[in-house]
Amino acid sequence: MIGPRTVGIVGTGLIGTSMGLAIRQRRVAERVVGVDVDAAAVEAAKTRGALDKGGTTYDILREADLVVVAVPPDAVVDAALQAAGSLRAGTVLTDVASTKAVIVSALEQRLPRLIRYVGGHPMAGSERSGPQAADAALLVGRPFIITPTSAGDGEAVEMVSALARGMGMEPVVLEAKAHDDLVAQVSHAPYLLAVAALNAAVDEALHIQGPGFAGFGRLAASPVEMWTQICAGNAQAIRRALARMREELDRLDRALEARNELALLLMQAQRRAGGDS
Amino acid sequence: MIGPRTVGIVGTGLIGTSMGLAIRQRRVAERVVGVDVDAAAVEAAKTRGALDKGGTTYDILREADLVVVAVPPDAVVDAALQAAGSLRAGTVLTDVASTKAVIVSALEQRLPRLIRYVGGHPMAGSERSGPQAADAALLVGRPFIITPTSAGDGEAVEMVSALARGMGMEPVVLEAKAHDDLVAQVSHAPYLLAVAALNAAVDEALHIQGPGFAGFGRLAASPVEMWTQICAGNAQAIRRALARMREELDRLDRALEARNELALLLMQAQRRAGGDS
Repeated sequence: MIGPRTVGIVGTGLIGTSMGLAIRQRRVAERVVGVDVDAAAVEAAKTRGALDKGGTTYDILREADLVVVAVPPDAVVDAALQAAGSLRAGTVLTDVASTKAVIVSALEQRLPRLIRYVGGHPMAGSERSGPQAADAALLVGRPFIITPTSAGDGEAVEMVSALARGMGMEPVVLEAKAHDDLVAQVSHAPYLLAVAALNAAVDEALHIQGPGFAGFGRLAASPVEMWTQICAGNAQAIRRALARMREELDRLDRALEARNELALLLMQAQRRAGGDS
Repeated sequence: MIGPRTVGIVGTGLIGTSMGLAIRQRRVAERVVGVDVDAAAVEAAKTRGALDKGGTTYDILREADLVVVAVPPDAVVDAALQAAGSLRAGTVLTDVASTKAVIVSALEQRLPRLIRYVGGHPMAGSERSGPQAADAALLVGRPFIITPTSAGDGEAVEMVSALARGMGMEPVVLEAKAHDDLVAQVSHAPYLLAVAALNAAVDEALHIQGPGFAGFGRLAASPVEMWTQICAGNAQAIRRALARMREELDRLDRALEARNELALLLMQAQRRAGGDS
């Protein structure tokens, strides 16, 4: 067993539907089946070509040997536990939530022993949401972080890695707490920086924004309900990351009066960003 | 007189060459002539198709009725004064620097009276630099801010506006000090937020960045020498903008422990970013 034959998707929103599209377009598995509480969302995912079969009840997952729970962070644990009731023994289960420690620990304790769970987090997204905005290209070239449970099921990790690679993503295995710390630094706290920049700017300034600010706008425009859940689920790591960023802002603020010192800090960031100097 | 017949470009880097390309591709003027101290840069701009005629001495500007000084911020005043020596009386002169108050005030005092200067700032750019990276598409849909001098030469403002519209940009007339305040909020301080985020993140985090962080990376990767000059030329307004952003960050940081309050702040930013809620 390496790649899955049938992938089940729970939640046909932006990421679930994008994964279904990628799996079917790239023939990563033979079949994709999907379930969503919203019948219209399942229908849309099917029409988009992301599912071979879809429905609103978990029994549709019975044939899957790999199931991806792609619902909002707060709903992952419940959805995974409910899905588990319809799965065959030995089925591999993963999710796509942007916070991992709480979810991995809860599912490790509460899932039936014969369901083989590993945490997942495809680092992909968009300011839009829902199956209509789904696109297999969102995934290409992005990291797919895999956070094993303490049980350390190597074969399950390998199956999720194969799925990630099949979709054009780069699997990266991390411990769940390390994931939460690192992702706070390059995703959660930067989102809050963008929110702060939007909320601090006067209206007239927002009308003359240049290309660099457009990225801040796209971040700040993304779904608030999802981000509220992410922030609540990783508050401690985010606060640590914000504190570090504010130290760097303090240094930059002081350096605004000292050109050489400023240039050194800017060059450090340029180097870290992979740019030329 | 509304649109220019011959546009002169001083400095065939990223922006000067992109403007030359836009003017020639869209037939905004009959001719584009360009000068750069670097003969290879002029040659590259010519090869790219941005210039009808190019050289390394200012006398090439003699035939222009509108001259755009597109050199780094610190070099604008000197280049404009030198170019003025080769211009006919009545020629309109503008520039493209990201800071305006200091430059407009210096040129207002020091340019010959018959050269009609208005400040300019096309809100466009890229993390790359030089004529090879130039692209007329960088300009399309972006604001072109025009900051008149106190002399208030309406005809000169109209000629620069016509140039901007011709290149597919949106002319916006602002007082120079207002420009510097607003641009600090949506360009200069956000650049420093990106620098802070890059400098605060550990190496391992930079390897798993998602799509939202890529925009921070592109900002931080842009030319340090130019940004050092911009920051030095607008330090006061940038410090005010950073202070406002840090107040917003403080509010977000506190709200991380209070989900409803956090959601309100995130929704405010989403609304300001033009997203759905």
